[in-house]
Amino acid sequence: MNKKTVIYILGCVLVFVSAFMLLPWFVSLIYSEETGKYFLYTAIAGFVLGRIMTWKKPEKGGFFAKEGFVSVALSWIVLSVVGAIPLWLSGEIPNFVDALFEIVSGFTTTGASIAENVEAFSHTALFWRSFSHWIGGMGVLVFMMAILPLADGENMHILRAESPGPIVSKLVPRMRKTAGILYLIYLTMTMLEIIALLISGLPTFDAVCMSLGTAGTGGFGLVVDSAASYTALQQVIITIFMVLFGVNFSFFYLILMKKSSDAFKIEEVRWYFAIFGIASILITLDLTHNASELLHNLNLATFQVASVMTTTGYATADFNLWPTFSKNILVMLMFVGACAGSTGGGIKVSRLIIYIKSSIREVSHLIHPRSVKVVKMDDKAVSDETIRTTHMYLIVYMFIFAASLFLLSLDKHDMVTNFTAIAATLNNIGPGLEVVGPMGGYGGFSVLSKLVMIFDMLIGRLEIFPLLILFAPRVWKHR
Amino acid sequence: MNKKTVIYILGCVLVFVSAFMLLPWFVSLIYSEETGKYFLYTAIAGFVLGRIMTWKKPEKGGFFAKEGFVSVALSWIVLSVVGAIPLWLSGEIPNFVDALFEIVSGFTTTGASIAENVEAFSHTALFWRSFSHWIGGMGVLVFMMAILPLADGENMHILRAESPGPIVSKLVPRMRKTAGILYLIYLTMTMLEIIALLISGLPTFDAVCMSLGTAGTGGFGLVVDSAASYTALQQVIITIFMVLFGVNFSFFYLILMKKSSDAFKIEEVRWYFAIFGIASILITLDLTHNASELLHNLNLATFQVASVMTTTGYATADFNLWPTFSKNILVMLMFVGACAGSTGGGIKVSRLIIYIKSSIREVSHLIHPRSVKVVKMDDKAVSDETIRTTHMYLIVYMFIFAASLFLLSLDKHDMVTNFTAIAATLNNIGPGLEVVGPMGGYGGFSVLSKLVMIFDMLIGRLEIFPLLILFAPRVWKHR
Repeated sequence: MNKKTVIYILGCVLVFVSAFMLLPWFVSLIYSEETGKYFLYTAIAGFVLGRIMTWKKPEKGGFFAKEGFVSVALSWIVLSVVGAIPLWLSGEIPNFVDALFEIVSGFTTTGASIAENVEAFSHTALFWRSFSHWIGGMGVLVFMMAILPLADGENMHILRAESPGPIVSKLVPRMRKTAGILYLIYLTMTMLEIIALLISGLPTFDAVCMSLGTAGTGGFGLVVDSAASYTALQQVIITIFMVLFGVNFSFFYLILMKKSSDAFKIEEVRWYFAIFGIASILITLDLTHNASELLHNLNLATFQVASVMTTTGYATADFNLWPTFSKNILVMLMFVGACAGSTGGGIKVSRLIIYIKSSIREVSHLIHPRSVKVVKMDDKAVSDETIRTTHMYLIVYMFIFAASLFLLSLDKHDMVTNFTAIAATLNNIGPGLEVVGPMGGYGGFSVLSKLVMIFDMLIGRLEIFPLLILFAPRVWKHR
Repeated sequence: MNKKTVIYILGCVLVFVSAFMLLPWFVSLIYSEETGKYFLYTAIAGFVLGRIMTWKKPEKGGFFAKEGFVSVALSWIVLSVVGAIPLWLSGEIPNFVDALFEIVSGFTTTGASIAENVEAFSHTALFWRSFSHWIGGMGVLVFMMAILPLADGENMHILRAESPGPIVSKLVPRMRKTAGILYLIYLTMTMLEIIALLISGLPTFDAVCMSLGTAGTGGFGLVVDSAASYTALQQVIITIFMVLFGVNFSFFYLILMKKSSDAFKIEEVRWYFAIFGIASILITLDLTHNASELLHNLNLATFQVASVMTTTGYATADFNLWPTFSKNILVMLMFVGACAGSTGGGIKVSRLIIYIKSSIREVSHLIHPRSVKVVKMDDKAVSDETIRTTHMYLIVYMFIFAASLFLLSLDKHDMVTNFTAIAATLNNIGPGLEVVGPMGGYGGFSVLSKLVMIFDMLIGRLEIFPLLILFAPRVWKHR
């Protein structure tokens, strides 16, 4: 293990997160809120510590996949702990585990809250929660990468570990430039949503925070009823942007490059829109009993489908009260998730495609054992290595799901609450059903259960292996 | 497709199932029940049709994996339809889909019943239900194989398609002899249970039927409360035999060959007993609030754990009313299932071992990308082919689960009912939770849902691929 480089990277993360904390401090100045000073103190302490850790730049080299995974995993732990401190010190969330849960939920873009009444938070805390979605959505290390002069090899290992999806596509050959382009698209689209919401009449603070939450596919709301009290126009705007932020960013890059026809040929994007469309129609039909409700229900269905599928987690309806068929579709979408290379979570549409195609190949292999059929995606062969790791992903995912469910069931909640609480945290969605439904919350769980779900949110965001690797004794052995 | 041989095999199955039907007819003579004559009529018709289909023996050869799968899948469909006819004609189950559900549940050793009051069945029908467990447990084609002079290649393809587990172990080089040994062990152990239950004071009819149901890991009971009203001793006897019938039959073969130390070294068997033990202890502790209940709860826990894990489905307690933690363990065990090469269903312990070991290998591969680590079972390397098909099994399994859940949710049942109904049928267990709990039943589902679960029971018993292959157009193409 190349400890020096890892420590250097962790130091960089500390400096960055400290810099990010100046924004909520700035918000506190506008609203003259006490909470702000705790962000300033934490930022100063974090900056000093970060600078000490980055004092000596380690020599190049010796940075492999293992170091990439470990750096990313530890960075996210550092990020979470530091991010929780001001919420805890300020007394906005008096219990540290709760504060950690809340900010991990923020950075991992889950949006599951321990708060019973979110309206009791200060503007500063609300902004920090929403901003953490934005930071976590694209990834803090990808952000660093766009700015810091790391070697391309190092960048690749980090991007691979922090970016979601089975295959990491470099938009351009230089990793640093790829990271820069990703953030530029991200920033521009966030701005567009803020502008659209402002035009629709939403107050500035709400427009900014809701847009940060949409962009990161986070889902922390500003009021108890999430987005239910917004106008239909505002809800439609949020629906559209939720769907857009769940799209593979290669799509936008191709459109920017004026290759729209190529963009719409991306298989994952087509499947994504198809699933979104079919699920929305089925739920609309399930909810509608007479024609006059149709448009209203279409708005409800598209919003909730977009919210769950992109793993954002905003709500305009208490879907916990919907019929079983609709609830069932939403629970399935929780697992499907958004596109790889988006800010969304879940298993990802591209993995789903690989599972389906490799299943079809397996059946045809049984019929003709000597036939060799290649699994293709976007007209390119998917390597056996990628198929294997994609399969392994699902299997390890299920073990983590089962183990989490086992631990959670020590609490006395019902089975649907437990199942959907794990689904909603592991897939970084936020709301589940019953106790953790869109109008419910995570405050009632035991400390053990909260720690389990903190772990699940992190492992879900980092797509399992970077965090899992920390538990392998071999990683820490000195050679 | 070698249609002639497939038709010949289907004809043999018809003859065999007709012969089997003489037993319930014989039972009807003892109890002077009207129902028996419908078994006789069906047997005669089945025998005549079967003899016509087997009139001309097809020439040898041209029988490959594909033909093996198709023969097994179609045989089970023929078996089910023919088996349902007397139940339906006699009016014991007036609706044909219900009769089909009941007998598929029998042959697949599921034990899920549409009957609201099982005590309304005649002795003839009760015996046929239990006997169908016994026939289906070891497999009707394996039985045929032990008797008919098929070529070894043909036998291998059939055994592979009908026997559960990722790897088919031939006990002895000659397939026909293997099948014979398997049935001998099966018959002997069933006899031992009958004798034990008779000594314990159970009436002959009950002892025979309960033993047939235990042997096949089926679970159809004879009274409404399943096995709850039996004495503690009788329950313990059933527990022991349930556990034994969930063990890989290689274990008993090795013991017969006086290689007990080898038998206890089989990894799957060790894991199986370990899981059984741990689950039983955890549930006993969860149920027990003061020491005096300990032995009683241990009996309840071991019985229910054995019943669910071996996918038998008898019950001595309404575990639907147990605390969430215990229910959760039982639901997990539903998926684990019994050993490969036993009469039990589920995903199987050996697959679980492969999933765990290949997950560990994946993590170590990420740490040292150039390391080559082999997955071993019983000190032998598991081939990459086996690992791949084992992974594919789980993935296709999950698709079938999700699709079934989707269709079932069109009924207005709650989510726990739907989820456990699929888990209980796809894993061939029988009881689930809520509406389909141990004291509930499957009568209230729609025809569509019943058809979905009939499909699930068959696909669960045949381990997916043989049945799935029927849907591939390529199988039916003429070359």
